[in-house]
Amino acid sequence: MSDSNSNSNIQLTSTISEDNKLTLALQNISIPQPGADEVVIRMEAAPLNPSDLAVLFSAGDMAKAIQSGPEQNPIITADVPAQAMPSLKTRVGKATPVGNEGAGTVVAAGSSAAAQALMGKMVAVIGGGTYRQYLCTNVQSCLELKAGTTAKEGASSFVNPLTALAMVETMRAEGHKAIVHAAAASSLGQMLNRICIADGVDLVNIVRKPEQETLLRDMGAKYVVNSSSETFIADLTAAIIETGATIAFDPIGGGQLTSDILNCMEEAAARDMKEHSVYGSDVFKQVYIYGALNRGPITLNRNFGFAWAVNGFLLFNALGKLGTETVITMRKRVADEITTTFASNYTHEVSLAEALQLKSIAAYSKQATGEKYLITPQK
Amino acid sequence: MSDSNSNSNIQLTSTISEDNKLTLALQNISIPQPGADEVVIRMEAAPLNPSDLAVLFSAGDMAKAIQSGPEQNPIITADVPAQAMPSLKTRVGKATPVGNEGAGTVVAAGSSAAAQALMGKMVAVIGGGTYRQYLCTNVQSCLELKAGTTAKEGASSFVNPLTALAMVETMRAEGHKAIVHAAAASSLGQMLNRICIADGVDLVNIVRKPEQETLLRDMGAKYVVNSSSETFIADLTAAIIETGATIAFDPIGGGQLTSDILNCMEEAAARDMKEHSVYGSDVFKQVYIYGALNRGPITLNRNFGFAWAVNGFLLFNALGKLGTETVITMRKRVADEITTTFASNYTHEVSLAEALQLKSIAAYSKQATGEKYLITPQK
Repeated sequence: MSDSNSNSNIQLTSTISEDNKLTLALQNISIPQPGADEVVIRMEAAPLNPSDLAVLFSAGDMAKAIQSGPEQNPIITADVPAQAMPSLKTRVGKATPVGNEGAGTVVAAGSSAAAQALMGKMVAVIGGGTYRQYLCTNVQSCLELKAGTTAKEGASSFVNPLTALAMVETMRAEGHKAIVHAAAASSLGQMLNRICIADGVDLVNIVRKPEQETLLRDMGAKYVVNSSSETFIADLTAAIIETGATIAFDPIGGGQLTSDILNCMEEAAARDMKEHSVYGSDVFKQVYIYGALNRGPITLNRNFGFAWAVNGFLLFNALGKLGTETVITMRKRVADEITTTFASNYTHEVSLAEALQLKSIAAYSKQATGEKYLITPQK
Repeated sequence: MSDSNSNSNIQLTSTISEDNKLTLALQNISIPQPGADEVVIRMEAAPLNPSDLAVLFSAGDMAKAIQSGPEQNPIITADVPAQAMPSLKTRVGKATPVGNEGAGTVVAAGSSAAAQALMGKMVAVIGGGTYRQYLCTNVQSCLELKAGTTAKEGASSFVNPLTALAMVETMRAEGHKAIVHAAAASSLGQMLNRICIADGVDLVNIVRKPEQETLLRDMGAKYVVNSSSETFIADLTAAIIETGATIAFDPIGGGQLTSDILNCMEEAAARDMKEHSVYGSDVFKQVYIYGALNRGPITLNRNFGFAWAVNGFLLFNALGKLGTETVITMRKRVADEITTTFASNYTHEVSLAEALQLKSIAAYSKQATGEKYLITPQK
C-alpha cells in the first residue's frame, strides 16, 4: 500500500432504513489487502451515469431531500414512499456503495501474474462502487489503459463505450443493417455516431432540440431527425427508408417513441409489399429499450403488424449473448480509442463531498444532455 | 371433376373500392383444373376465426353496414374511414377471397403421386380462401385426415391446433418450463389446456368470467385465474410462483394485461433475489402477443427490470423458426387427435349466403368466447 498517504479510504454510500428513509453519506473504511487476482486502485475519476443515479437515489424523493452535517462531510436524507419499500427489501439496512465505473492507478497488486502486470498502471474499472478513494477489485474488472491516458480520459471506459459497441454488434449478430438511436446527442449517442461513421453503418439519430441536430451534424452524422418537429414521423420514415434500419435503441422507454419507431419501420416495409396482409409486413422490427429516462408507461399503438419485438437491453446480458471473443475485441478497441471514438466530455468535476451537496444533486439529477459530472475522489 | 354436380363454384369475397367502400358478396367462379401437385377440394366446412374477420371486414365500419340484394345472394356494404385507406392500397379493387382453413373431399387431383394419393380423401386445408365451394390448392397445404373424420371435425385443423402446439414448442425451444395464457377459455385455449395436461406442462389460464373458470377446471385445468377478480394480481403471481412460468401468450394486446403478466413474473423472480439490483431480476420474461382482440394501445408499466421481451407472434413465422421436422410431427398429431385434443365446438352453422346476412355478422363479429361459427359452403 506504499502509495497511499494515509489509511483513509472515503467511500460514498446510499442506505435505505426500515423507517422509509434514504441516507447518502461518506464513510471511512479500511483499505483491503488484495487477494491473488486482485488489485487496489487509487480512484482518481468516476463519472455520474444515469445508472449510478438509480442506485444512489433509489426511490428517494430527492426534490424534498435535506442536507445536514459539515460541508466536508454532508449527509443527505430523503423520504422513500411506503409503496416502494417492498421492492427494496433486499437493500434495507445495507450501506450500498455507489459508482459503476471509473479510473485510477493500481497501487497494490495480488500475487498472480495478471495482478502484478497491472502494478503502477492506469486502469479503468467496472463495478464495485467506484465512488471511493481506494477500490480493491478482481483484475477481470480492470482495463489497462495506454501509457499517457489520464484518469479523466479513462473514467468512462465501460458503460457508454461497451454499450455503444454492443449496439452495433447486436445489430450485426441479429441480421440488421442500420440503426435508429433515440436521445442520440448523449455521450453514448456521440460515441455510437463515431463508431457508425468509422464502421460504415448507417445511423438514424433522433434528438429533440435543434442544437442537438447541429451538434451531431457537425460530428458528421448524415441522418438526424428531431422528435419535436411537426414533420418528425415523415422525417423518421424517410430516413428509415433510405437506410433500411430495422433495429432501434431507445433509452427513454416511457411514452410513444418506441411505438413511433416501429410504425415508421412498418410504413417503410409496407412500401415494398405487393399483396395486402392483415398481419402486416414480414419484415422483423426490433426496438431495444436500454434506459428509463421516462419512467412512465410505454405505449405501443400497434399499426406495425406481427413481426416485431420490444426488449429490455442491459449491457451485461448483451455482452453475455455476444460472447467472450467479441467482448475482448471490444475492450481492446475502447483502450485504443479512448481519447477519440470513446472520448467523454465532463462539464463539472466534484469531490466526493461536493457530489453530496444538494446544489450538485439538483444539477446532475436532471440528466440533461450535454451536462455530465465527474467525481474526483482524491480531491 | 367427376364429383361436382354443376359448374357452380360460389366464393365469398371482400372488396375495397377507391371510393372508400367495403363490399362483401358471393361470386360464381370457374372450377380450375388442378396442376400436377394440386388438388381440387369440395369444401364442406370452414370456421370463422378472428383472423378471417380481419380479412373479411378489414377497416369497414360494420356497425353501420347495409345489406342489399336477395336473401340467397346478399351484398353487404360498409364505409371505410378515409384515414385507413392508405394502408389498404394493395387491396383496393381486388375481390379478396376469405377463409384461412377448412375441410372437404378431394374431387380432382393433379398427376403427381402426392396429389393422386389424396383423391377421394377427406382433407383439411390451410390458406387460399376456403369460403367457397371448390378450392384448388397445392398438396402441401393439405392435411389428410383419418378415415371416418368428418369435414366438421376437421375444419379447424390448422390455425388453432398448430398455434397451440407452436406455443408449447416455442416454450421448449426458448428454455421456459411453464406457460401463462390469456383469454384461455377460447377454442385455442381449450386445446392448449388439453395439450399441456397430456404433455405434463404447467399452464396458467387467465380468464375473465366465473363460468370460464368453471369450464377450464372441469376440463382438468389446475391453474385458472380471473382477471376480473380483485385478487387477480396476487392470484396470478401465486400461480407463476408455483409453476415457474416465464413465457406468456396473449391474444388481446391492447390494455395492461401484458404488463400485468410481466410484473407478476418479475415479482415472482424477485422473491429469489438476495441482492437488490436497479436493473431488476435477471430472469428473462417473454410475452408473445398473437392477436388483437383489443386494438387499443398496449400499455407497459415497467416494474419488471430489463430482462424481458414483448413480441408479436404469428403462426407462420413461429413454424418457420421451429423447423420442418417439428412441424411435420405437429401436423401428424393434429390428424391423429382431431376429435379429442384438437376438437372444436361450433354453436352455429351457416351457408355462404347466411354468413353474409347482417344478423349473422352482428353475432360472429363479437368474437365471444364460447360462440363459434362454421360455414358449410355446400348448403
